[in-house]
Amino acid sequence: MGGYLMSAPETPRAPLSAIPADLVSVADYARYAPAFIPHPVMEYIAGGGADELSLKRNRSALDALQILPRALVDCTAGGTHTQVLGERLRHPVLLAPVAFQTLVHPEGELATAEAASVLETGMVASTLSSVSLEAIAARCSAPKWFQLYMQQSRDFTLQLVRRAEAAGYTQLMVTVDAPLHGIRNRAQRAGYVLPPGVEAVNLKDRPPLPSASFEPSQSIVFQGMMSEVPKWDDIAWLQTQTRLPITLKGLLHPADVQRAQDMGLAGAVISNHGGRTLDCVPSPIEMLPQIRQRVGQDFCLLLDGAIERGTDVFKALAMGADAVLLGRPQLYALAVAGKLGVAHLLRILREELEVTMALAGTPTIADITAEALLPR
Amino acid sequence: MGGYLMSAPETPRAPLSAIPADLVSVADYARYAPAFIPHPVMEYIAGGGADELSLKRNRSALDALQILPRALVDCTAGGTHTQVLGERLRHPVLLAPVAFQTLVHPEGELATAEAASVLETGMVASTLSSVSLEAIAARCSAPKWFQLYMQQSRDFTLQLVRRAEAAGYTQLMVTVDAPLHGIRNRAQRAGYVLPPGVEAVNLKDRPPLPSASFEPSQSIVFQGMMSEVPKWDDIAWLQTQTRLPITLKGLLHPADVQRAQDMGLAGAVISNHGGRTLDCVPSPIEMLPQIRQRVGQDFCLLLDGAIERGTDVFKALAMGADAVLLGRPQLYALAVAGKLGVAHLLRILREELEVTMALAGTPTIADITAEALLPR
Amino acid sequence: MGGYLMSAPETPRAPLSAIPADLVSVADYARYAPAFIPHPVMEYIAGGGADELSLKRNRSALDALQILPRALVDCTAGGTHTQVLGERLRHPVLLAPVAFQTLVHPEGELATAEAASVLETGMVASTLSSVSLEAIAARCSAPKWFQLYMQQSRDFTLQLVRRAEAAGYTQLMVTVDAPLHGIRNRAQRAGYVLPPGVEAVNLKDRPPLPSASFEPSQSIVFQGMMSEVPKWDDIAWLQTQTRLPITLKGLLHPADVQRAQDMGLAGAVISNHGGRTLDCVPSPIEMLPQIRQRVGQDFCLLLDGAIERGTDVFKALAMGADAVLLGRPQLYALAVAGKLGVAHLLRILREELEVTMALAGTPTIADITAEALLPR
Amino acid sequence: MGGYLMSAPETPRAPLSAIPADLVSVADYARYAPAFIPHPVMEYIAGGGADELSLKRNRSALDALQILPRALVDCTAGGTHTQVLGERLRHPVLLAPVAFQTLVHPEGELATAEAASVLETGMVASTLSSVSLEAIAARCSAPKWFQLYMQQSRDFTLQLVRRAEAAGYTQLMVTVDAPLHGIRNRAQRAGYVLPPGVEAVNLKDRPPLPSASFEPSQSIVFQGMMSEVPKWDDIAWLQTQTRLPITLKGLLHPADVQRAQDMGLAGAVISNHGGRTLDCVPSPIEMLPQIRQRVGQDFCLLLDGAIERGTDVFKALAMGADAVLLGRPQLYALAVAGKLGVAHLLRILREELEVTMALAGTPTIADITAEALLPR
Repeated sequence: MGGYLMSAPETPRAPLSAIPADLVSVADYARYAPAFIPHPVMEYIAGGGADELSLKRNRSALDALQILPRALVDCTAGGTHTQVLGERLRHPVLLAPVAFQTLVHPEGELATAEAASVLETGMVASTLSSVSLEAIAARCSAPKWFQLYMQQSRDFTLQLVRRAEAAGYTQLMVTVDAPLHGIRNRAQRAGYVLPPGVEAVNLKDRPPLPSASFEPSQSIVFQGMMSEVPKWDDIAWLQTQTRLPITLKGLLHPADVQRAQDMGLAGAVISNHGGRTLDCVPSPIEMLPQIRQRVGQDFCLLLDGAIERGTDVFKALAMGADAVLLGRPQLYALAVAGKLGVAHLLRILREELEVTMALAGTPTIADITAEALLPR
Repeated sequence: MGGYLMSAPETPRAPLSAIPADLVSVADYARYAPAFIPHPVMEYIAGGGADELSLKRNRSALDALQILPRALVDCTAGGTHTQVLGERLRHPVLLAPVAFQTLVHPEGELATAEAASVLETGMVASTLSSVSLEAIAARCSAPKWFQLYMQQSRDFTLQLVRRAEAAGYTQLMVTVDAPLHGIRNRAQRAGYVLPPGVEAVNLKDRPPLPSASFEPSQSIVFQGMMSEVPKWDDIAWLQTQTRLPITLKGLLHPADVQRAQDMGLAGAVISNHGGRTLDCVPSPIEMLPQIRQRVGQDFCLLLDGAIERGTDVFKALAMGADAVLLGRPQLYALAVAGKLGVAHLLRILREELEVTMALAGTPTIADITAEALLPR
Repeated sequence: MGGYLMSAPETPRAPLSAIPADLVSVADYARYAPAFIPHPVMEYIAGGGADELSLKRNRSALDALQILPRALVDCTAGGTHTQVLGERLRHPVLLAPVAFQTLVHPEGELATAEAASVLETGMVASTLSSVSLEAIAARCSAPKWFQLYMQQSRDFTLQLVRRAEAAGYTQLMVTVDAPLHGIRNRAQRAGYVLPPGVEAVNLKDRPPLPSASFEPSQSIVFQGMMSEVPKWDDIAWLQTQTRLPITLKGLLHPADVQRAQDMGLAGAVISNHGGRTLDCVPSPIEMLPQIRQRVGQDFCLLLDGAIERGTDVFKALAMGADAVLLGRPQLYALAVAGKLGVAHLLRILREELEVTMALAGTPTIADITAEALLPR
Repeated sequence: MGGYLMSAPETPRAPLSAIPADLVSVADYARYAPAFIPHPVMEYIAGGGADELSLKRNRSALDALQILPRALVDCTAGGTHTQVLGERLRHPVLLAPVAFQTLVHPEGELATAEAASVLETGMVASTLSSVSLEAIAARCSAPKWFQLYMQQSRDFTLQLVRRAEAAGYTQLMVTVDAPLHGIRNRAQRAGYVLPPGVEAVNLKDRPPLPSASFEPSQSIVFQGMMSEVPKWDDIAWLQTQTRLPITLKGLLHPADVQRAQDMGLAGAVISNHGGRTLDCVPSPIEMLPQIRQRVGQDFCLLLDGAIERGTDVFKALAMGADAVLLGRPQLYALAVAGKLGVAHLLRILREELEVTMALAGTPTIADITAEALLPR
């Protein structure tokens, strides 16, 4: 990448109030971020699971795809508007649920919500937000969805759902690929811990977990943590409790997506959690075509992981996604320039997508099909 | 690469009046150039779109091809002469249309034209030349073609065509792959702007564009810029206005080339604009064989992108091109040593092609077929 | 890898008595080790044969495999227990036979044996241990197997077998892939020699080899060294001498494994000796599927080479292994923190395997089949 | 590679009289050589044509092959002896014809010949030797063959052949892949010229070439240089002039090798001249299997290019070669330690081949077949 690399200073810099002239791409925010984020937090955010093979694969799998452009197409009626899960979106990009945003900026999720509102970009608020889901909703005039980590207590899960419904969230996105944290060696080596003052405010009233004890032959993983996480029947139960459409976030196996469709769920986010949980898994983009083929054109499929360019959005759509989610870059932009940064980030991505569509000769979202890619 | 890398000085060096002994290849000009070209201009020239994946792919796709030589062939009647678009060329290499050549040398396109004349190398003058098309033509005794950016005003387009006809240009090459600039992050990060005193002199009398205003849901890309660029029917209109043969520059999709042939156009330049506009597109050389197969042997196909070696020219011809175009290296050679540099550059490339043909056992251009490459 | 690289000091550091906070993976032990091991010894341990292509291939072949996880599976009855060669193992990981462990820590194999006991990890003691096989056995409450280098004297071989039987070893693992050392250039360049005080104590009473002389046309390799190493009929002889199950360590060719099965041997370790003997051979993991297909589900197949992650163990099992062996990391952990280090190392690997199984949706060892990997 | 890199001093060092302890592989000689060879000469020797893609491909194509070893084979009757072109060789490695050896050591080819004699390694003397072919022959008790560059004057060619016959050379190896030097940019950039005092002594009495003049449309390559080089009918003529078996050196195309066989020639050296002439050609090893299949088992096929390891020799034989030739390393060893260096080099290679054969379970040259490689 061109430009200079910002090295990590002793004390993180205060967020900027204007965008520097050489900050012109999503990746530039990753380049600037280390100067604005404490080192252990930066490692926690940027890092992936274990050896970060999936993190790298998310990028390389996108890079391996080629767009095959058409020339001299009339694009004057073009635009990025689209319909996803029954909602009209200004562009097929959403802010992925990202936990604990006050880690990088004092306004946290509130700044993100304002930027989303300005750019008309759908935002998915996290169960683990550092600002209450109600406060986020109050600041967000764009489409707003709620990401749900199902809790061991069904009552408490239901309480979260009711609050989301009441606050005006229109979709429930249930994360299913992170029952455990994964092996976060990079964050561990940097000594990352959640700093004081940053907390999961939505969970303040969570009932305490029953204390557990294990026999020598038992495992804290299987007999401990895994007993607290949702299974398929918990999803079925959730369906009976709410009218909000439910999507599952974090599926990779076509049979799992098929099962979600068969249960009558609304959609799925094809994702490996940004390469942050289990390492050595496929990238979402490489699983997407066979999943789309399996579930047909009407089941909603979203995708996240390494989306950084308008061409990345384009490729995901051409491979079968209805829209994509943007994770880490939110935090980088938030740290570098607060709500201005996030808004700028979203504008860059939208403009890049428009330029890509125009140069590819595909003026509308519906025109972006597998035909627009070089067959592999 | 051997030799030392020239680092960028504070003030660019004046062009050399003699060729250094270690400047022996086209790539060596790229190595020398940063000492002779202001940094932002160098970044603008050398850079590609976005992450420069297509820029790199142009190179790697050529490198991936292998020539399978024949031994002990009688090459004494050999030579590089060829016939392209009805014109006899000394060798199957042309100077691609490159805008604003006074950016790197005060004589700009005039020096290039003189070098082309000496080496009998066809030159394609750009609509965006920094010296008038008439002045270029007056200096150029080699085959000269005119590259046309079609203008929003058909009258003004026609005026350019008439000037080109009058100045003695024998072909019209209409660029169709750059309706927008693409995402030129590298040039943006370096702060590149067209310096004062360098301008598109051919367009001085261009009528002002009507002022536009957009509704909030509209896009400056689709409803703005894309309304000013040519579509297929503009090409059809142009055919009715001139007797000059027309080639389209910037096609990659076989169906687009087919359509150009069906319309009765003269040829096509398979190109991704040197990786400068839409990133993540295939390299021309990888699309070429299926395009050649689709249009048959008689339709003229040219190619540009990363041509730096006699072996590159050879490979392009073996894959189905009639000739190739040379872009960026022109500017490097012009900056380093003016007309002498460009002439030297062209001589290097011709001699490398001759050596390649001799060592491959293919003494004439007609002998360079797919048989001369290792099947993949 | 994150964190800092420990550079080799003049004098190796003494082993640590507590685990540093940034030592969180098996690879971290390799990062720390150079500060604790004399340079020539480190080169001897870390190095592979010749150009180390097989050493690298062992790693890259594992990295090339992708786990395809299932979501929302009930894992509460999960665990890593398994049955190998008739013995129940706490997890499908064994300590490979590693020679001369006092090279890196004064307690050598005794410390390793204690760590194995604490973690209930099977240990394979080497013929070339620097502590007697009886002393190792006395310290090891975990499953203990004996690795046998067959000796030129059948009597002396038998003497070793009888001692192993008497000491309570339950399996014989006969190494067959290192009749010669291979081309250990890295160790040679570092000037490695076995330091004084480190010796193969089990072989102290070995009868002297008959002195050999060669004609000019003869070779010290073929007519010398290779006359002292076992052939298939020596294995058949060994079968008649002991009731201990015999596995062959160091097979790669499916036909050789088949032959071992046909002879009635108990199993095979698919291995290229950690890339330390013949360079340019396949990695065990790439040979494993066709070997498993050839011998069926019931023949015991183990694997070693580059196992460093829970995901590596998982992949080996999914490709057909019953368990894996851990080589070099033992020495790194032993050097860095003695028995504490080895125990920590084994705990890391077990926990990583548990997390992998939980996140992959395969709660038991039996669930880890080829279905759990992305088809290639 | 381990060890330190020798940097080029101002004045090259004198050859060593003893082999350093860390000089243990063929590649180590390449590492030491820059300290013993003047920089421009080093660049000339080490360099390849143009961008050196074929130079690198020669190495990578060998590295891509995997040996699939057999265990527990009886190798006690093994050895490297073989029969090539009717002559018995101690091992299937020959010293390739390498020009101007006094460039790197005052004794030049004489030292090489003595080393070859000691190691019983066949030597191919070059037409362009810096010591007379008769003097070389007088020093060489090993098999000695003569490499012939055919001259424009058939009389003079014949004079060279008669001298070779008289001096006791038993084979003629006619180089056909270097009618031109190729694009030697690396040597050019370093300013390489043949230093005074080094000359092609065998050609001292060569008749002067007729002076040539060219028309403007003619080419010095085609109408000049290529008129002086041999064609197929010159080879046929040569066959009528000598009883020595003739092999052609520098074929890559299966049809050319077939033609050589059909003419009744004795064999071919599959070679791309060490990547030194035409760049972007396949490596010999990748062409070899289809060539062997085309000509059957009885036609002699040799190979050169990047042979540095016993495993390389093994792979070439397994792919179909009868023996291999060693080029550049001769000069490195000669420069570093004169005849001692060359002898050491040859001993390393023979011992590595023996170790490879022993570890692969292929005790004789005849056992090294395609079966010994992993199918690709």
